[in-house]
Amino acid sequence: MTTTSSDPRVYAVVMAGGQGTRFWPLSRGKTPKQLLPLAGGEESLLRATVRRIADLVPPERVLIVTGLGLRDAVLAELPELPPENVLAEPVGRNTAPCVGWAAATVARRDPAGVLAVLAADHFIRDEPGYLEVVRRAVRTAASGEMVTVGIRPTRPETGYGYLEVGEPLADGVFRAKRFVEKPDRARAEDFLRAGTFLWNSGMFFFRADVVLAAIERFLPQLARGLAEYDVAAKSGEETAAVARTYATLPSVSIDTGVMERAEQVAVVPGDFGWSDVGSWTTAYELADKDAAGNALPSDAVAVDSERNYVRAPHGKLVALVGVADLVIVDTDDALLVMPRERAQDVRAVVDALRARGSLDKL
Amino acid sequence: MTTTSSDPRVYAVVMAGGQGTRFWPLSRGKTPKQLLPLAGGEESLLRATVRRIADLVPPERVLIVTGLGLRDAVLAELPELPPENVLAEPVGRNTAPCVGWAAATVARRDPAGVLAVLAADHFIRDEPGYLEVVRRAVRTAASGEMVTVGIRPTRPETGYGYLEVGEPLADGVFRAKRFVEKPDRARAEDFLRAGTFLWNSGMFFFRADVVLAAIERFLPQLARGLAEYDVAAKSGEETAAVARTYATLPSVSIDTGVMERAEQVAVVPGDFGWSDVGSWTTAYELADKDAAGNALPSDAVAVDSERNYVRAPHGKLVALVGVADLVIVDTDDALLVMPRERAQDVRAVVDALRARGSLDKL
Repeated sequence: MTTTSSDPRVYAVVMAGGQGTRFWPLSRGKTPKQLLPLAGGEESLLRATVRRIADLVPPERVLIVTGLGLRDAVLAELPELPPENVLAEPVGRNTAPCVGWAAATVARRDPAGVLAVLAADHFIRDEPGYLEVVRRAVRTAASGEMVTVGIRPTRPETGYGYLEVGEPLADGVFRAKRFVEKPDRARAEDFLRAGTFLWNSGMFFFRADVVLAAIERFLPQLARGLAEYDVAAKSGEETAAVARTYATLPSVSIDTGVMERAEQVAVVPGDFGWSDVGSWTTAYELADKDAAGNALPSDAVAVDSERNYVRAPHGKLVALVGVADLVIVDTDDALLVMPRERAQDVRAVVDALRARGSLDKL
Repeated sequence: MTTTSSDPRVYAVVMAGGQGTRFWPLSRGKTPKQLLPLAGGEESLLRATVRRIADLVPPERVLIVTGLGLRDAVLAELPELPPENVLAEPVGRNTAPCVGWAAATVARRDPAGVLAVLAADHFIRDEPGYLEVVRRAVRTAASGEMVTVGIRPTRPETGYGYLEVGEPLADGVFRAKRFVEKPDRARAEDFLRAGTFLWNSGMFFFRADVVLAAIERFLPQLARGLAEYDVAAKSGEETAAVARTYATLPSVSIDTGVMERAEQVAVVPGDFGWSDVGSWTTAYELADKDAAGNALPSDAVAVDSERNYVRAPHGKLVALVGVADLVIVDTDDALLVMPRERAQDVRAVVDALRARGSLDKL
């Protein structure tokens, strides 16, 4: 590994597509989870993502990749961004086209620019610790490495992919030995005991030219598509080209399509209170709670009730009597009530609504 | 007992005061439970009460006693009533002043008119059976008896008063031996086994002159107040007199103030599917249910959920996942969630709201 160049230009690439159906009924087509304040407080997950890296990445170098239908909402949420920095996908094609398109966009401005690929739905408790890890990952990426951030596991989680850490490359930087798919419980416990496995956070860092070369090698069909966009961009016709061909790009994740196929990947371990804000369970864990473990609107009335998570519109009075461990999400036109342990099954409701054609509620 | 006079003139006196706080948040100061459709269907409890006896009592002989603040709402619900038939109490003083005022009002028109004192919050499944009992009670009352209707108990209910049946007076009419306060569980079971105890339904039948004479004897202070109203009524000043003195009338129930003190009371047993619609538990029991025992709005989504009772505004989508035996009542500005077995504890919520001064929610 070569030494890092000083002061690389960093471009944040925030992946903000998807709806987050597990946050129904608060998340909707027009207000997906990344635009909601789901990690406590009033700040949306997307805004928090951009704010956390603001010291390192000014707005003109923040790219948001999102769906065409969310372009205006994203710009409204982040008015400081140049509008052309919102890359609006006409259709979702997983993360490889998303990262590839962002990399091509960066490369036109700055081929050696470093992409910090971030998800719009992560919570981070220790922000200085996070920034330190990001800086280390950026320095490593500037030298030509493809870098992933691995989170030190705190429980035998079966909902995340893992990666195994190999030999050290530099202070706080290691070779990644291998990626591992979501394990079953027994394997997850083995990983936790071994101490050499990290959660794959889905944050990636690489130079634009480096990841484009990897795409050229591992996903040539995607590379051809991106080359067309480069040509179209020269005559101001990129949007039209994207509209025409994005749906034909290979639908594959950057993880399996590129990172897992690369001979060499570096990993920077992190330990900064990270959560994937993936369901109402996480939202409950991150919320402020009263002495009985309830996360409630401030004017709610709770009698003999414990460990409930309640969201309701401003001015709506919520009263609980003798209930525990419920998730209650009230909006102007929909109400969800379920035990917290069933949080994953919100999908069943969304599926039922889709099946019956209740599109106004989705 | 004398034989009954034929075709007595019957006046329904419907007691429709009170708010029904146990139906919060649907029941409110301006829409108390008697104005709500709480027994299934769309008909309010009050309208159902008046409709059930319509064959016997035309609108001009229906008197509604309610609170001053509810006068307009009652007239809107029952537009066929002459406005002067709504007796609006400036303040609630339990049922003896309420019945006394109604009796005085009837007596001015028709001293031998029979009052059928009915509650506005009862559900009756077998309406022909009910009418038969009412007719029998009216005939008995026309002869000068004070009559109560007793319901054959179907369970050892501890929430109702009982009365013990004595010797027969006529076909389906008995002497009442004694009234019994709400019993504990063991006594209630004894009553059920004995077979000679009935639930005190709170429906009473007596001639206006008969009940006024009893009030004169047992509640002379009330009788004096009523006499003042008679005088004031002659000069069209009854409303002013009521406003001035109603609060000074003795606050006592017609049960304990008059009926339980009378030497002779007749009881007509009834068996017509009666329920006191006293809490969300009863509302659940009376509601239409799906195969899983849920009483839900027609467009609700229920996944792995059983025996829940849900009310929500029209157009509000309610989704349940993995919950059972809950009462969920959603209104535009308040939401209640509790297990059905805690239905009585809605009062705790109402008390808390009163204590904190959230009067707009009451």
